[in-house]
Amino acid sequence: MAAPSDDVQVLSAFFSMFGLRVLIALEHKGVPYKYIAENIVHKSRRLRQSNPVHKKIPVLLHNGKSICESLIIVQYIDETWPSLDKPSILPKDPYSCAIARFWADFVDKKAYDAGLLIIKSLPGVDREEAVKNFIEVIQTLDTALRDVSKGKPFFGGEHIGLVDVALAPFLCWFEAYETLGEFKIWEGSNCVHLQQWATDVMEYPSVKEALKIAHSDVIVECAYNMRSFYHGD
Amino acid sequence: MAAPSDDVQVLSAFFSMFGLRVLIALEHKGVPYKYIAENIVHKSRRLRQSNPVHKKIPVLLHNGKSICESLIIVQYIDETWPSLDKPSILPKDPYSCAIARFWADFVDKKAYDAGLLIIKSLPGVDREEAVKNFIEVIQTLDTALRDVSKGKPFFGGEHIGLVDVALAPFLCWFEAYETLGEFKIWEGSNCVHLQQWATDVMEYPSVKEALKIAHSDVIVECAYNMRSFYHGD
Repeated sequence: MAAPSDDVQVLSAFFSMFGLRVLIALEHKGVPYKYIAENIVHKSRRLRQSNPVHKKIPVLLHNGKSICESLIIVQYIDETWPSLDKPSILPKDPYSCAIARFWADFVDKKAYDAGLLIIKSLPGVDREEAVKNFIEVIQTLDTALRDVSKGKPFFGGEHIGLVDVALAPFLCWFEAYETLGEFKIWEGSNCVHLQQWATDVMEYPSVKEALKIAHSDVIVECAYNMRSFYHGD
Repeated sequence: MAAPSDDVQVLSAFFSMFGLRVLIALEHKGVPYKYIAENIVHKSRRLRQSNPVHKKIPVLLHNGKSICESLIIVQYIDETWPSLDKPSILPKDPYSCAIARFWADFVDKKAYDAGLLIIKSLPGVDREEAVKNFIEVIQTLDTALRDVSKGKPFFGGEHIGLVDVALAPFLCWFEAYETLGEFKIWEGSNCVHLQQWATDVMEYPSVKEALKIAHSDVIVECAYNMRSFYHGD
């Protein structure tokens, strides 16, 4: 439980899948926090000072100390505020922990870029390649979920764990990927486990609470703006 | 201490800065291991089966279970084999732990690529840019070391920690960067802390033992081959 004197602030943006991870973890731990919306184009002095190396959101400010990089922040939250009524976000067993870190890292290395490729893609071969790559990433995650969860609803088991926290915000971008990529993610991808997970995780209380700021229709607009930006329109 | 029945194998290559991290961590913990040299062009069935997602070295095989991605492996080693006579590789305090993870992640995201840019670069503007970028990365690490170590020799303090383990193998490539980039890393970069660290860390027993397979002159040759490969020679 956070001490009453704890000052917890999150510098982020409603559309940031990395920032939303931090909110999920804080909600999961029941830590009260102040959400501070940052402009990622015109970066505030606060953002530049609290993350001088990368100058990127999200940043967690805990009693004035800044922690950067979303997966590092999530682990910090997990270690700083022990769970009372549910398992920790990272499993205690070192091997399970390594497996969770591996898949969270996979989301960072493959899933984010796969989505970005779709947003940048124009109709034609590029688009086809981007959609094919995206489906492969989703299928890899579907297999991972099947192997890791062993029949339980989440990567973390009965409760959400690191991979669920890392991946759930990705779902907020699915409408944007489908709209801009002109395809349907679940049709033909045969990802039955991941599709059920997507339904379940969006109903998980801390995820639902954290992601309520991430409106899909506004994110679709953001994605169109990103595409224009990339193509210099 | 590893149990006598522990079977520990590392799939790696002598020039892999990621693989060398794993050897340093095992040496540091006094865990006996078998080093298995992998061919990264003609990948063995063993490598493809033990890291089916990325098919990359290093892989740690511990009693038949595979763990992939170097920083994840190092954390696994730290959590699996507690240190008896020295501090753990990751600090116990969550904030110090987050800072260590941040800088190890920085090495992965910036330092490796900065080196690769030099290897790929041909004389001219590209080369100048690559060298400038490399020096900036080194200077950022110099400042980080000054701030984190607080006058002690290593990022980890009196003993090596996660950032030292992550960064030390990078030094094995310095001769290659200097030769192919036609510049001197320490001249003009004014990185007095990092330069002293480089001397100290190479003398640290577990680092010295692990890195003895990484001969700089052979790595220079590897770097020339990489350049030829990139430019299609």
